[in-house]
Amino acid sequence: MTAQDTTTQGSTAHDLVARRTTGHSLEGAFYTGQEFFGLDIEAVFAKHWLFVATDAELPEPGDYLTLDVGPYSILLVRHGGDDLRAFHNVCRHRGARLLDQERGSVGNLVCGYHKWTYGTDGALRHAPSQPPEFDPGCFGLKPVHVRSVGGLVFVCVAEEPPADFAEVAALIEPYLLPHRLREAKVAARVDLVEDGNWKLVMENNRECYHCDSHPELLRSFFPTYGCTEADVPPQLRSAHERYLRADAELRATYDRLGLPFALVEELDTRVSGFRIQRDALDLAGESFTPDGTAACRRLLGDLPTARLGHLSLHLQPNAWFHVLSDHAVTFSVLPVAPGKTALRTTWLVHPDAEEGVDYDLGTLMKVWRATNEQDARLVARAQQGVGSPAYEPGPYAPTEYQVEAFCNWYVTRLREHLWR
Amino acid sequence: MTAQDTTTQGSTAHDLVARRTTGHSLEGAFYTGQEFFGLDIEAVFAKHWLFVATDAELPEPGDYLTLDVGPYSILLVRHGGDDLRAFHNVCRHRGARLLDQERGSVGNLVCGYHKWTYGTDGALRHAPSQPPEFDPGCFGLKPVHVRSVGGLVFVCVAEEPPADFAEVAALIEPYLLPHRLREAKVAARVDLVEDGNWKLVMENNRECYHCDSHPELLRSFFPTYGCTEADVPPQLRSAHERYLRADAELRATYDRLGLPFALVEELDTRVSGFRIQRDALDLAGESFTPDGTAACRRLLGDLPTARLGHLSLHLQPNAWFHVLSDHAVTFSVLPVAPGKTALRTTWLVHPDAEEGVDYDLGTLMKVWRATNEQDARLVARAQQGVGSPAYEPGPYAPTEYQVEAFCNWYVTRLREHLWR
Amino acid sequence: MTAQDTTTQGSTAHDLVARRTTGHSLEGAFYTGQEFFGLDIEAVFAKHWLFVATDAELPEPGDYLTLDVGPYSILLVRHGGDDLRAFHNVCRHRGARLLDQERGSVGNLVCGYHKWTYGTDGALRHAPSQPPEFDPGCFGLKPVHVRSVGGLVFVCVAEEPPADFAEVAALIEPYLLPHRLREAKVAARVDLVEDGNWKLVMENNRECYHCDSHPELLRSFFPTYGCTEADVPPQLRSAHERYLRADAELRATYDRLGLPFALVEELDTRVSGFRIQRDALDLAGESFTPDGTAACRRLLGDLPTARLGHLSLHLQPNAWFHVLSDHAVTFSVLPVAPGKTALRTTWLVHPDAEEGVDYDLGTLMKVWRATNEQDARLVARAQQGVGSPAYEPGPYAPTEYQVEAFCNWYVTRLREHLWR
Repeated sequence: MTAQDTTTQGSTAHDLVARRTTGHSLEGAFYTGQEFFGLDIEAVFAKHWLFVATDAELPEPGDYLTLDVGPYSILLVRHGGDDLRAFHNVCRHRGARLLDQERGSVGNLVCGYHKWTYGTDGALRHAPSQPPEFDPGCFGLKPVHVRSVGGLVFVCVAEEPPADFAEVAALIEPYLLPHRLREAKVAARVDLVEDGNWKLVMENNRECYHCDSHPELLRSFFPTYGCTEADVPPQLRSAHERYLRADAELRATYDRLGLPFALVEELDTRVSGFRIQRDALDLAGESFTPDGTAACRRLLGDLPTARLGHLSLHLQPNAWFHVLSDHAVTFSVLPVAPGKTALRTTWLVHPDAEEGVDYDLGTLMKVWRATNEQDARLVARAQQGVGSPAYEPGPYAPTEYQVEAFCNWYVTRLREHLWR
Repeated sequence: MTAQDTTTQGSTAHDLVARRTTGHSLEGAFYTGQEFFGLDIEAVFAKHWLFVATDAELPEPGDYLTLDVGPYSILLVRHGGDDLRAFHNVCRHRGARLLDQERGSVGNLVCGYHKWTYGTDGALRHAPSQPPEFDPGCFGLKPVHVRSVGGLVFVCVAEEPPADFAEVAALIEPYLLPHRLREAKVAARVDLVEDGNWKLVMENNRECYHCDSHPELLRSFFPTYGCTEADVPPQLRSAHERYLRADAELRATYDRLGLPFALVEELDTRVSGFRIQRDALDLAGESFTPDGTAACRRLLGDLPTARLGHLSLHLQPNAWFHVLSDHAVTFSVLPVAPGKTALRTTWLVHPDAEEGVDYDLGTLMKVWRATNEQDARLVARAQQGVGSPAYEPGPYAPTEYQVEAFCNWYVTRLREHLWR
Repeated sequence: MTAQDTTTQGSTAHDLVARRTTGHSLEGAFYTGQEFFGLDIEAVFAKHWLFVATDAELPEPGDYLTLDVGPYSILLVRHGGDDLRAFHNVCRHRGARLLDQERGSVGNLVCGYHKWTYGTDGALRHAPSQPPEFDPGCFGLKPVHVRSVGGLVFVCVAEEPPADFAEVAALIEPYLLPHRLREAKVAARVDLVEDGNWKLVMENNRECYHCDSHPELLRSFFPTYGCTEADVPPQLRSAHERYLRADAELRATYDRLGLPFALVEELDTRVSGFRIQRDALDLAGESFTPDGTAACRRLLGDLPTARLGHLSLHLQPNAWFHVLSDHAVTFSVLPVAPGKTALRTTWLVHPDAEEGVDYDLGTLMKVWRATNEQDARLVARAQQGVGSPAYEPGPYAPTEYQVEAFCNWYVTRLREHLWR
């Protein structure tokens, strides 16, 4: 028993999952204990589709990247033009990590230990010094499910991935396709390890109750962002009218283009919980820049205007996205330890956009680099607090309903895993 | 099972507590195992009064400091002149750490996450965006018991703190009050993390059998310190006579001042175990300096002489103190991990004493800075040794009777917790 | 349950040991879990003879060295010319680590805490401040079994060391004695902490299937090293003829000298598993240098030629050795954590050989310093891979039969410990 386990002394994970009450934040052990970390890997990360990369990162056959999902190491490799493959990055011989670089390009996949050599389709092509009865057909790499949705790449290590993801993909793809992320190029990528549980990272992203901490981000949001009509304070009435006009204009733009605009929110009503929304931005309304104008002169896709607001997509368990006319930003969350979470942020621009000519990298990255760092500090203080035996789940404010929905979804996943 | 747990394979904490035999040091698992670390937090640190600060550190309303006691984070804040408050440093909303600086001064206590705002009395004054039915009266900060004894501040996170502490406070306060620590100022503070269990830190402080390792400290102690009358070796006889004269003189001084002088030793005979003693110092007899003269020209309190020896106070579970005519030194011990302990040492002087004029900081701190570092090395080697499966509790020497008393007290605490 | 424990969820160590199937590598939990780390200390390192030093490191009475074997700290000290002693490095008083330097020379063994003083025979000579009834005879240092075999020093912390080690010593000593390691001097020592389980370090050493990663080492090995006669590829036929000639010549040399030459391999057929072999080297056939000539002009022992190939000795659980005409290299493996292992490599030369005159240290150390670093990278990638829940034991190639024999031996040790 560690000191932190004293928070729930006498209560098992089963007890905590069973007694969770809605309307309140989760008990501390969900965030701090090794037991829940193991459960989260098994019940959530090993069973659901995870966003881990973009097609844009692996444009050519042989391009690969490796990534860690809890104890799993996964290898993504482009086998052919549209044929992306994923495998466990573990040699079938004595289990060595097959590829140990984070990314690169190869002809075959050659284990660095004893040179077992696999094709990019996972087939074992050569294993030195084997006896005649050795059958290479029995030792292909173990596959991992993989699929791309509008240029966003998802993997699932479960034998049977959640069936409803096909529906979700069909729902969100029409929103994504016009932005042509499949052909985009990576302008930048930043890895940040936050000192908090992965659920605190996801929860933090599901509310703007804390957005006073994000001055850069707030510049492009309307001042009444997150308010219901009834809540708008008198002094923000004219700002709100400005928002309503921008929203109507944006809706008309998408209608004219024949593109979907409606908010769809299914955070806790399905296995592959998600939420998608188009929303207007303040000022020039084009991008997350100080004056709201596009950060990149070449726009993504071939839409006829830069004034497209932002497409916000949230996908459980581990990702969110902002797609704008001029660039897109993807966020992938992976658990490292009960109190450590890796956040990978990737900025995408038009494949022909040139740094220094079409965009300034600092300007492009500024808002989300700052916002991520601010969020990391908030997540760290949340983690520190919930570790106290004196912490008691508190009430969500109405503006935190999506945090609650995320927790509902999460607890349902654990219940299905534990009571299965 | 870790390697260290192999020391007690097949034995539970209950077994080890039950079979502890007096006269010998404790078995290794008491110092190395996560199970005992958890027990020590629950049975000792979460149930007893802990010395954590001095009033001198929080002179003005709004002054606060935060501290970690195992998994607990505690916030001390001055609400009014004599009104010190302590709370769990955990926001009542979603549990974020409320204040994340170690110390400072505030009007209200504002959570950095969603701006929930509490008064220095712990009442929730403002929580943004709440529905009408939200009752702030239900979400005040959770209080922690706090009390000051002669300027020394103690907290207790238990619902019902040990009742006998009032008696102990009444016993020791007359010794402390003449030195006026309540109004003193902090000259210096040093935090040291020792590589050993908190009990080894406390045990090490309860004997001078190892004092050959402390040449600086020994200068101001009489050469026969710790000897009984019968033990005094012939070659130290004249030094011992010098001690007896100094002791008689000191006793007369305190009698004349009408202040208590008697040794009181109740280390293992009550819940709030303690020991208090006035003792003469060698050389000039005033302070812990190379020649024994005062390190600070302005004396603490308003006593008419600098030749007051030292007041030694030991309070279980976690503190000891040396109060001299010219300065006081406080020591607060807090467990960090089975093999890591934080020791905070604070030097107090007269509020009007000026550094560089009335005292030289290096001279003031020299003896205890050196002694702490020497002790840290001894504690680290004790920790290393007791982790061996070959370690077997050995016999205490007669001069180590206070170590044994501390262990008796500690084992009694665990028995009361486990067999309750 | 940690994430890594999910690899074997529902399976205990007993289950894993019971279901181990031959012909395949071990399951992941053997390498990653705390439970197996504890078992390995108990069942293997606390029960078998371990190679830990050479006589050459402790030439004079009073010379000592200390070392950690899992949670044990052991003290080796020369008591007299041929009388080497080993003790638990734990004071019999309150358990402090007795000596805290890694090596040195002393008259008596004095504990740095309270000055308890022991002779180099372990007897307690002085303990200050003890009452008359204190019997020093009851508080001698706890002995550890120790013996030297041809200059190689082994310890065993078990009460009853494996009985068959005497046979093994009798078998290997005639191979070792002519090289006179007992009188050699230490030219260099390198400590390396590898990021892998100790068994992966030992397994890696039991096969040359991965030797493409060792270009420096391969220079002195014949190109058909490890091939059976039937396996020799046509293009290596002439190289193999060269090997057969060198082998015949080497055999004749040893026959002429009256020294044993035969391979003895008992890796999994006894408790003290071992393998000893003399083998020819390519090129000049004298040493591990780029051209195969001796790295040290003064030869070890008094053999009449430098062309002696190498004596390879492997001793379970934790050591291997290469003895050449001009120098010897010893390797000692000690577990630090499930995924951390200490490897100590020591180079020995003739006692009168002078650095810069008789040998260049860089040349002497080059091959094994490089080979160790290459192996450490391979071991790290093996450790990373077997931690994946997707890892499944794979088939050994015929050239890996010694790896399998090591694993057979290891699993037998665990079975004897668990089912005893």
